[in-house]
Amino acid sequence: MSGAAAPRRRGRPPRAADGDAPAARDRILEAARAEFSERGYEKTSVRGIARAAGVDSALVHHYFGTKEQVFEAAVEVAFAPALDAPAAVADGPLDGAGERLTRFALGLWENPATRAPLLAIVRSAVDNETAAAVFRRLIAAQLLRRIAGRLEPPDAELRAELAAAQLVGIVMLRHVIKAEPLASADPELIVERVAPVVQGHLTAP
Amino acid sequence: MSGAAAPRRRGRPPRAADGDAPAARDRILEAARAEFSERGYEKTSVRGIARAAGVDSALVHHYFGTKEQVFEAAVEVAFAPALDAPAAVADGPLDGAGERLTRFALGLWENPATRAPLLAIVRSAVDNETAAAVFRRLIAAQLLRRIAGRLEPPDAELRAELAAAQLVGIVMLRHVIKAEPLASADPELIVERVAPVVQGHLTAP
Repeated sequence: MSGAAAPRRRGRPPRAADGDAPAARDRILEAARAEFSERGYEKTSVRGIARAAGVDSALVHHYFGTKEQVFEAAVEVAFAPALDAPAAVADGPLDGAGERLTRFALGLWENPATRAPLLAIVRSAVDNETAAAVFRRLIAAQLLRRIAGRLEPPDAELRAELAAAQLVGIVMLRHVIKAEPLASADPELIVERVAPVVQGHLTAP
Repeated sequence: MSGAAAPRRRGRPPRAADGDAPAARDRILEAARAEFSERGYEKTSVRGIARAAGVDSALVHHYFGTKEQVFEAAVEVAFAPALDAPAAVADGPLDGAGERLTRFALGLWENPATRAPLLAIVRSAVDNETAAAVFRRLIAAQLLRRIAGRLEPPDAELRAELAAAQLVGIVMLRHVIKAEPLASADPELIVERVAPVVQGHLTAP
């Protein structure tokens, strides 16, 4: 702010050299998503994110705070559009919820823009409690609260989670482990097979 | 062999100082399972395994070769008893296969002796191709080949894999992410809900 031009590693970060703060902020988020999805939470550093974004580490801390906060911002900003979808999934007619939820979950992973932050969460959540908590929170907030609230007790939350488990498992084998034949299967064939199963978890007696 | 007593980091490893080679070999495997399951493949080092086992790194290389080979030995030795079970799962009557497979998969994860190597595979497979290949091989060899061979074509392998996906997802949410209510659910309740779904994947029209 006071025009200090000498590079400093600590203290107030300089304004982005290119003078375009929103662009720098977006570059940091994009770099963070790429780093977290490629390396997982533990192996990703704020310094590595800053390097990939072409900014100083101090600017990353300035915009986002700790590494944990960068992680949350990176995955949650990317989720913002996707997180509106469960409303439509959960709020439509209950007897089509299985297919809507299946198409929604598979669609998130077919779309490169949402696949990267999702991979970041999965790769991070298996060995880091912070990332696991973000995963749990996404599942709890979006799925259990919205969908389970409409199911018959008892075990409404367990039903919703078993439905989610079917989809989580498909995504793990198809997109993370890449096991054939699921990795190359036609998405429509998967929907055809899986939507009735998800529906059964939600509403079968 | 020639009685060299001075510590060396390279070349032929000394025999285990305690003179008990099988015990040292077992300690290395146990340490490897613990390290891989806690840290995942990438962050585990042969040096760290050797330290945890109380032996020299050279002895680890002597018995097992590369880190990849230590990993395979650590997870596959632990699987040896478990890998006999799919025969019984796959070779019994087909109309009970859903329940047998569900009980088998959940049982592997309820048992601490098999949970550690499984966690090692999952934590490693999400960000390492070697570990992902081991995962794929276990699924392909044990599940797809044995069970899918008995199912109706077409899509027999896809059916077996979708059944596996349901179980993989449950294990991810229950044992890795620890999302409630699944993390604390009674295993018998899970079997009751999930066995018919797994059976449906395998044999429903």
